[in-house]
Amino acid sequence: MGNVGETWKSIEGGIAAPQGFYAVGVRAGIKYENKYDVALLFSQVQAQAAGVYTRNLVKAHPLYLTQRHLHNGLAQAVVINSGNANACVGEFGDQAALAMAQVVAMFTAVPVEDVLVASTGVIGVEMPLDRVLNGIRAASAELLGAMVKGIRGQEETADDGAHRAALAIMTTDTIVKERAYELPCSRGGVIKLGGMAKGSGMIHPNMGTMLGFLTTDAKLPAAELQRILREAVDESFNMVTIDGDTSTNDMVLFLANGVSGVTLSEEDLANFEKLVKTMCVQLAQDIARDGEGASKFMEVTVSGAKTKDDARKIAKSICGSSLVKTALFGEDANWGRIFTAAGYAGAEFDPGRVDISLGDLSVAQAGKGIAFSEEKAKEILGFKDVQISLNLHMGEEDATAWGCDLTHEYVTINGSYRT
Amino acid sequence: MGNVGETWKSIEGGIAAPQGFYAVGVRAGIKYENKYDVALLFSQVQAQAAGVYTRNLVKAHPLYLTQRHLHNGLAQAVVINSGNANACVGEFGDQAALAMAQVVAMFTAVPVEDVLVASTGVIGVEMPLDRVLNGIRAASAELLGAMVKGIRGQEETADDGAHRAALAIMTTDTIVKERAYELPCSRGGVIKLGGMAKGSGMIHPNMGTMLGFLTTDAKLPAAELQRILREAVDESFNMVTIDGDTSTNDMVLFLANGVSGVTLSEEDLANFEKLVKTMCVQLAQDIARDGEGASKFMEVTVSGAKTKDDARKIAKSICGSSLVKTALFGEDANWGRIFTAAGYAGAEFDPGRVDISLGDLSVAQAGKGIAFSEEKAKEILGFKDVQISLNLHMGEEDATAWGCDLTHEYVTINGSYRT
Repeated sequence: MGNVGETWKSIEGGIAAPQGFYAVGVRAGIKYENKYDVALLFSQVQAQAAGVYTRNLVKAHPLYLTQRHLHNGLAQAVVINSGNANACVGEFGDQAALAMAQVVAMFTAVPVEDVLVASTGVIGVEMPLDRVLNGIRAASAELLGAMVKGIRGQEETADDGAHRAALAIMTTDTIVKERAYELPCSRGGVIKLGGMAKGSGMIHPNMGTMLGFLTTDAKLPAAELQRILREAVDESFNMVTIDGDTSTNDMVLFLANGVSGVTLSEEDLANFEKLVKTMCVQLAQDIARDGEGASKFMEVTVSGAKTKDDARKIAKSICGSSLVKTALFGEDANWGRIFTAAGYAGAEFDPGRVDISLGDLSVAQAGKGIAFSEEKAKEILGFKDVQISLNLHMGEEDATAWGCDLTHEYVTINGSYRT
Repeated sequence: MGNVGETWKSIEGGIAAPQGFYAVGVRAGIKYENKYDVALLFSQVQAQAAGVYTRNLVKAHPLYLTQRHLHNGLAQAVVINSGNANACVGEFGDQAALAMAQVVAMFTAVPVEDVLVASTGVIGVEMPLDRVLNGIRAASAELLGAMVKGIRGQEETADDGAHRAALAIMTTDTIVKERAYELPCSRGGVIKLGGMAKGSGMIHPNMGTMLGFLTTDAKLPAAELQRILREAVDESFNMVTIDGDTSTNDMVLFLANGVSGVTLSEEDLANFEKLVKTMCVQLAQDIARDGEGASKFMEVTVSGAKTKDDARKIAKSICGSSLVKTALFGEDANWGRIFTAAGYAGAEFDPGRVDISLGDLSVAQAGKGIAFSEEKAKEILGFKDVQISLNLHMGEEDATAWGCDLTHEYVTINGSYRT
């Protein structure tokens, strides 16, 4: 996705990089000792807001609250906890999600309807609400302190707060996923974009919760923000997290507070959309790379498809195939498994036209295996990053998906997640 | 599926138990030393025949031949090899499948159109045709010898031939899957049913080839046989092998040679249909139990569904969930993963009505976790066989699916399958 001639540049500051945003992360003792587990994100002014949510029929309690509060396209704060999903616990769960929003609303003096809530962790167990709310109180107090410092021009701790927020939303994640960019605008001024995400690429990737939070100080109406987010998510997070194979808690939220004061030209808007996609793809790749117990990262590109949907289905089917994933782990050039996973993806293509490559090594042409150097294949599969490409020769559409290998460690991690 | 008042009884003889059927298995050296890898099944008269096949877009070469040869609903011989799938190798593959049928046709003096072919093993590599055909010659010769003995009343080796045939279709299977039954008929006489299967329950179960072969000496027209087979497969093999998640080589064939001479009453036919389903369920369970590296077997029953299709989707989604499978391996009562897998199954239900049990221990009611004894849960999950049940409280339909846990051994086996 890295285009030549990009006009943006990477900056520090993560989710709090855009003007007027503040973020903190605290240790509330929800699950582990000494682990950040409550994050609070706040905009100094009411922001336009957009969200996309899991398609799983079984939805966690905070999702309902967030969807309801986002109904008017406005939000000012987001509170997130890890260690407990607040899912499938009945009436208690709705009350807990509301209590989380209420504590933030009281401390920051914003309407409770402008507070959004997200959770990730174990399902079906009531959250330790006292500890969660105490954590939110501590986070709110720290946030107010940071804002006071900000107002006084002492922002040296702001980066750290955003980083701790990114730490606080992690569960089995091993790497922090945060990014920030600034984009110079055509009529002068810059707008900034920040983001953080949580998720580990799993066998069925989307079964583990995927959370994403984006902020910008650009001025954009909620409807426009929603469109930009939807399109970016479809090409990024949804290409790691398989449709219809979703967790109870997945969501991606996007807040635009307009504090930059910059008015966007059409060209600026187009660049901004590209930048949002780029950042979402980077965060999605980070999730795939951080797969539970993963030792390798795979990027699957399907070209020559009749429709975008066909290309996506096939790319995701290959990334999600346990047999492809174990072959990748074993560095075995078993391209038949790649072809088989394409065959059951539910997409339309002629098997007799398909070309398959591992890296730059062609292993099958026109649906048929060709002689290739096992040594060269072994070398390609020996890298930490492995590219798989299929050309269907059916049309002009393409798509890329990301995944990881399936290892012994995956089994170990998931065999004892809850207990 | 074991019903009280069954009229049938289990007998020896496997696939060759029904009158007029012969089976042998030989070592052709296709993949391993000292492993049976070519099976030949033969009926002394032309039989009515039915088949169901993989829905994968990518189909192995023998599938096309078998579908073509079965077009008239007649067959007399089935030849099967393991060690090479004869898939995705172009023109060579079609020629190889035809050559396999031709050798059988020549030796047994039946029309080549009455010979069906199945293969299982690695995809995309040309089969060692000389060895395969030599194996088929040896199998044909032995089969003719067995027939001569049969005609002379010296059938003592027949059982052994069927058993070797069942061994010869195995790849990563660790247990032989064969069954036989006899069913007394209402107007006197008995009909027999035999079967053998191959398959290992995988993470995405149906990605590994599933083969099934059924024989009967009952007299049934091909169309009737096809209906009975279709219905039985939908409730058995397809509940281990997930729809749309199919291998290139899957097929189940059913031959009825009428040699029993018994005319079936309506009641006999109904009993026979039940028996076919029962045997297919047993073979399907054997496949689930024999999962690659599996240490546990799971049976998931979904009741109270609005439609049969909903019940099946949910049962299979749970059995296929890697997170449920790893939790089973870790003996962790993580019912949230069960509920989540139900939620993304693509079925219609109200999450707020769902009850979930592990064995006889209720863990969630009306979509909400309830207090349960972790000790009791640990005991239930400690068994080799684990029952999971969901009641959706949406309607009257139910379905059962079978699967296994996901272990370190699975990763080891599949990390180095091809090389």
